[in-house]
Amino acid sequence: MSIDPPSNLTTPAFTRPSSPAPQLPPSPLKSGKHKIAVIGSGSWGSALAKIAAENAWKRHDEFHSEVRMWVREKQVNGKKLTEVINRTHLNSRYLPDIPLPRNLVATPHLKDVVKDATLIVFVTPHQFLHTVIREISAPGILTPGARAITAIKGVEVNGTDISTFASLIEAQLSIPTSALSGANIALEVAKGQFCETTIGVPGRADALLWEAVFDSPDFRVATVDDVAGVSLSGALKNIVALAAGMVDGMGMGGNTKAAILRIGLQEMRGFCLEFFAGSKAETFSNESAGIADLITTCYGGRNRKCAEEFAKTGQPFDVIEKKLLNGQKLQGTLTSEEVNRFLLARRRTKGYPLFEKVYKIAFEGMPVNELVKGL
Amino acid sequence: MSIDPPSNLTTPAFTRPSSPAPQLPPSPLKSGKHKIAVIGSGSWGSALAKIAAENAWKRHDEFHSEVRMWVREKQVNGKKLTEVINRTHLNSRYLPDIPLPRNLVATPHLKDVVKDATLIVFVTPHQFLHTVIREISAPGILTPGARAITAIKGVEVNGTDISTFASLIEAQLSIPTSALSGANIALEVAKGQFCETTIGVPGRADALLWEAVFDSPDFRVATVDDVAGVSLSGALKNIVALAAGMVDGMGMGGNTKAAILRIGLQEMRGFCLEFFAGSKAETFSNESAGIADLITTCYGGRNRKCAEEFAKTGQPFDVIEKKLLNGQKLQGTLTSEEVNRFLLARRRTKGYPLFEKVYKIAFEGMPVNELVKGL
Repeated sequence: MSIDPPSNLTTPAFTRPSSPAPQLPPSPLKSGKHKIAVIGSGSWGSALAKIAAENAWKRHDEFHSEVRMWVREKQVNGKKLTEVINRTHLNSRYLPDIPLPRNLVATPHLKDVVKDATLIVFVTPHQFLHTVIREISAPGILTPGARAITAIKGVEVNGTDISTFASLIEAQLSIPTSALSGANIALEVAKGQFCETTIGVPGRADALLWEAVFDSPDFRVATVDDVAGVSLSGALKNIVALAAGMVDGMGMGGNTKAAILRIGLQEMRGFCLEFFAGSKAETFSNESAGIADLITTCYGGRNRKCAEEFAKTGQPFDVIEKKLLNGQKLQGTLTSEEVNRFLLARRRTKGYPLFEKVYKIAFEGMPVNELVKGL
Repeated sequence: MSIDPPSNLTTPAFTRPSSPAPQLPPSPLKSGKHKIAVIGSGSWGSALAKIAAENAWKRHDEFHSEVRMWVREKQVNGKKLTEVINRTHLNSRYLPDIPLPRNLVATPHLKDVVKDATLIVFVTPHQFLHTVIREISAPGILTPGARAITAIKGVEVNGTDISTFASLIEAQLSIPTSALSGANIALEVAKGQFCETTIGVPGRADALLWEAVFDSPDFRVATVDDVAGVSLSGALKNIVALAAGMVDGMGMGGNTKAAILRIGLQEMRGFCLEFFAGSKAETFSNESAGIADLITTCYGGRNRKCAEEFAKTGQPFDVIEKKLLNGQKLQGTLTSEEVNRFLLARRRTKGYPLFEKVYKIAFEGMPVNELVKGL
C-alpha cells in the first residue's frame, strides 16, 4: 500500500528549545529502522497510535513510516471497521472526528501487526491481554530484540502475589517492557491539547526509544526509572477516584475532596513502596503519572462519575455501570477488588484504610458516609 | 461577662482512636492555663476562632474558656459589629448563618484582645499586619512567653530579600511563630465538613499547643517542622491558581490543567527549597498545605475564577477584581508581582518559567495562550 503524508501534520503550536535529538539505539531490523506496532484501537489506543505514527513520519530516517494498529474486526454500518479506518482515516467507532495520520494502518490480524515490529505498544482492554500475549508468544512471531510498552491500567492478583501488566508482558514474552501513564484523557490527547505523560523504563535504551515514539510538543514525555510505580499509579488512582466520586455524591466540599486525594496519594505511594521493590516515591509526588493523573481522574473520568451516582442512589456498581457506561467496564471497582484481595492475603488491609473503606462501601454495604470517618 | 456553654457543641461525627491527650507545655500565666487570642474576624478568622473556642471550652482545665477575637469595629445596620456578634453569636458580615461558640468574644480593641494571651492567632488581611504588629509590640502589651501562629497568606519582598509573615511576626515580636495552612475553604471549615490542615512549627512545644488549639475530628491537624514551607505553599499556590484559571478560561481540558498543577507544584517546591534553608520537599508533596490546598485552590477559589474571567475577556485584573470580588483583594496577582520582583532581583526568573509566564500574562500583555507553550 502506498503511504501518503499524514493528513493532519500541522505546524506545531510552539517550538521547543532545539537540542539535537539523541542517536537512537540501533534497530535489530536489516533496514536499520525501528518499526512501531500498536495493539489496540479504542480511544486511548487510537490517540497513542496517532502520536506514534506522526512521530514515525517525521523521523522517517529512524522509523518505518508505516505504523500498524491492531483492530478487532467488526462491522460498522455493514462495512469492516479496518476498511473504514484505512479509507477515511477516522476511527468512527472509538475516536470519531479526529483525523488519523495516513501512515497509520488498521490491521485485523495480530500476526500482521507485530510482524517485524521492534517497538510494540500494548493498549488493549486488559481482559484481552492474556489472549494477545498467548497469540504473539508462539515461536517465530516476535522479532528478536523487540521491546514493549504498555498503557493498560490495572493489576493482577494471585493469592499473595500481585503483578502489573508490564511485569506480565515482560515475563511472558521475555522482552524489556516499559509502562506509559499520565494525566491523559484520550480525547484531549487526540485533539492535541497540551498534556504530559510519564514513561517508566527498565533502561536507558528504552527511554530513548519510547521518548522518540511518543514525545511531541503537545504530549510531553518524561521518562523515569520506575516501571512499577508508573504502572501502579495508573491502576490505584482509580480506587481513589471512587472515593472522590463518593465525596461528590454526598455533596461534600472541595476541602474534603482534597483531603481524600492527599490521603489517597499517600496510600498509592505507600502500597507501591511496600510491595514493589525499587519503586520510587517521586513517581507519585512529582510525575504526571502520579499526582497529575490522580487529579484529572478525581475531577473527571468515569470512576468518579459512577461513584457519585452510587453515593446518590445507593444502586450497586454493576447496575450503574450498565446505566452510565454504555458497555464499558469500570476500572476502579475491579482494581479495588483485586487490591483488597491482595491486602487480605497479606494481612495488610489496616495499612490502607482508604482503600479498605472504598472496598467495603462498594461491595460490603458499609454506609458511604463512613468514608471520611477516622481517616 | 458570663460565659455560657458554646451553642453548637454537638456530638462529634465520629470518635477518634482515643490516646490520652499529651500534657501541654506549661502556661506562663499564674492561672496555669493558656489563653487564646484571635486577631482577625473575616470568614477565615471567624472559622478558626470558632474551632479554637470550641477546643478551649472542651479543654477548660488547660485553656481559659474565653477566647477573644479582634473585630475592626464597623456599623452594621446601625449597630456595632462587635455587639451584634456578642449578642447573636453570628458574624453577620463575614460568616453569616454559622453559629459561633458563646465563649468567643468579639473585641474592638487590639490591646484588650491580646491582654494575657499566651497563644495569638494572626489572621487579618495581610495589609493590616504591620499596623497590628506595631500596636502590640509596644512595651507591656504582650505576655512574656506568648507564642504566635499566622494563617495569613503571602510574602513580602524587599530587593533580594523575601520574608514570610511568620518570619516577620517572629522577628518583630520576638516570639516563636508557627504557620497554619491547608485545603481549607473557610465556609466549609465553619460548616464542619471534614478537612485537614498543616501547621508548620518551630519546635515541639509549639506543635503540642497549636494542635490542642485547632485539632478536631472535622479539622485534622498535622504538624511539620517546616514553618517556611507551610507559609510559602499557602502564598505560591495562588500563582498556580491564576494559571489554572487561565487554562479554564481558554477552554482547555483536564489534562492541561493537571499538567499546570504538577508543574506549579514543582516550582513551589523548588522555590521554597532554593530560597528558604531548612524547608522540606515533603511539605509540598505530602501535606494538606501543599498538594491538597493547591488542588482545592485550582478547582475552586477566587484566584482561579478571576483568572478564568481574565482569559475570557482580556480585561485587566484590577477591573475583574472590582467586578467579581465585592471589595476583596486578589491574593494571587499580588503574590505574583512580589515573587516576580524577587526573582528578577535574584536573576532567577528562568528557573521558574510558569511563575514568570503568569506574571507576564497578567501584567505585561503576553498573550494568554503562551501559557502552556514550551513549559
